[in-house]
Amino acid sequence: MFTEQEKQAVYKVIGARRDVRSFLTQPLPDGAVQRILKAAHYGPSVGFMQPWNFILVTSTEVKERLAWAAEKERKALSIHYEGERAEQFLHLKVQGIQEAPLTVCVTCDPTRGGSHVLGRNSIPETDIMSTACAIQNMWLASCAEGIAMGWVSFYKKNDVRDILGLPPHIDPVALLSLGYTDQYPVAPILETEKWEKRRELDTLIYYNKWGGTA
Amino acid sequence: MFTEQEKQAVYKVIGARRDVRSFLTQPLPDGAVQRILKAAHYGPSVGFMQPWNFILVTSTEVKERLAWAAEKERKALSIHYEGERAEQFLHLKVQGIQEAPLTVCVTCDPTRGGSHVLGRNSIPETDIMSTACAIQNMWLASCAEGIAMGWVSFYKKNDVRDILGLPPHIDPVALLSLGYTDQYPVAPILETEKWEKRRELDTLIYYNKWGGTA
Repeated sequence: MFTEQEKQAVYKVIGARRDVRSFLTQPLPDGAVQRILKAAHYGPSVGFMQPWNFILVTSTEVKERLAWAAEKERKALSIHYEGERAEQFLHLKVQGIQEAPLTVCVTCDPTRGGSHVLGRNSIPETDIMSTACAIQNMWLASCAEGIAMGWVSFYKKNDVRDILGLPPHIDPVALLSLGYTDQYPVAPILETEKWEKRRELDTLIYYNKWGGTA
Repeated sequence: MFTEQEKQAVYKVIGARRDVRSFLTQPLPDGAVQRILKAAHYGPSVGFMQPWNFILVTSTEVKERLAWAAEKERKALSIHYEGERAEQFLHLKVQGIQEAPLTVCVTCDPTRGGSHVLGRNSIPETDIMSTACAIQNMWLASCAEGIAMGWVSFYKKNDVRDILGLPPHIDPVALLSLGYTDQYPVAPILETEKWEKRRELDTLIYYNKWGGTA
């Protein structure tokens, strides 16, 4: 059972979690990193398959190569935007891999647990959804620890496979940068930068069928 | 900033969250359901695309049809297990859709935000991963509210599309049952039922490359 104070803390961390792109280089305490990884490991997984691995990158050389892969993808994507949107895009900071003291590559092994993982047999992508739930736990735990986290999703998976020596069947689902920051956003950066607005929750809720009203 | 007590509450909910399959029929307070949905909507999403919708199913008829789709899939999957594993499988309760007062179908609209969603352009499955993060927020919020939740992933997506009238491009990523329970599991059900064990976290952590040690 949760007290009212504990419940409020849970909602506080859910509301305060932000995707951060600017970090201080100050190293992170080992204890906090271990607690954040344990939070990930206590995420749910279909058929209890626990498909995740965590590659902790602190090597300057490896971080530089990951940043290169992300920057290369950013340049490639920028070609798709035109006019005002292109200017907005170029203004966005999409990653802070080199500044952040730690980058965690979270991977998903679709073969873990064998050929007939309960639930994954019906919906194969439940393995990456499980991994995403673990990442959300990391994000909330980081936020509660006062540590900022950013999820980089600008890269070609095969670049990351090459850089980190991943076997071909291992899916690098996320590059997460973690560190302290002096620029913690009060609202989502893409909202502040007028890239996208938060939708009204009421418009996203239906009843008993698609489009159904209460 | 989070106090030590608030931090402990966040870790408490992450550790206490369980996938639940047995529910009481007692209805849920509207306020709690709204807070849980708001927690989902405060999940992260690639390019702030917010690809989710929430279909709240309380109609007995619709719940019966969803339970039928899940049961049909359970029977189909059971064919793939043999011997002791088959007996274990048949013993597992895979869903409680009919008992639970509320089932939420969480959907993902891969077209939301237009053709060039930031980040999704590089990794298209970031849309369902975003939706999974929203679901993890719901799970933690439910747990803090004293409400049990179960994620059913046994169904053919087109059955759920038919039952709920979803447009063909809308992905029904999860059926979530919510309700009170008098059978809250202390450990994951699949661990208690000796279906799978929790892995040692240390064996899942690498440093700077796949297989790398500290």
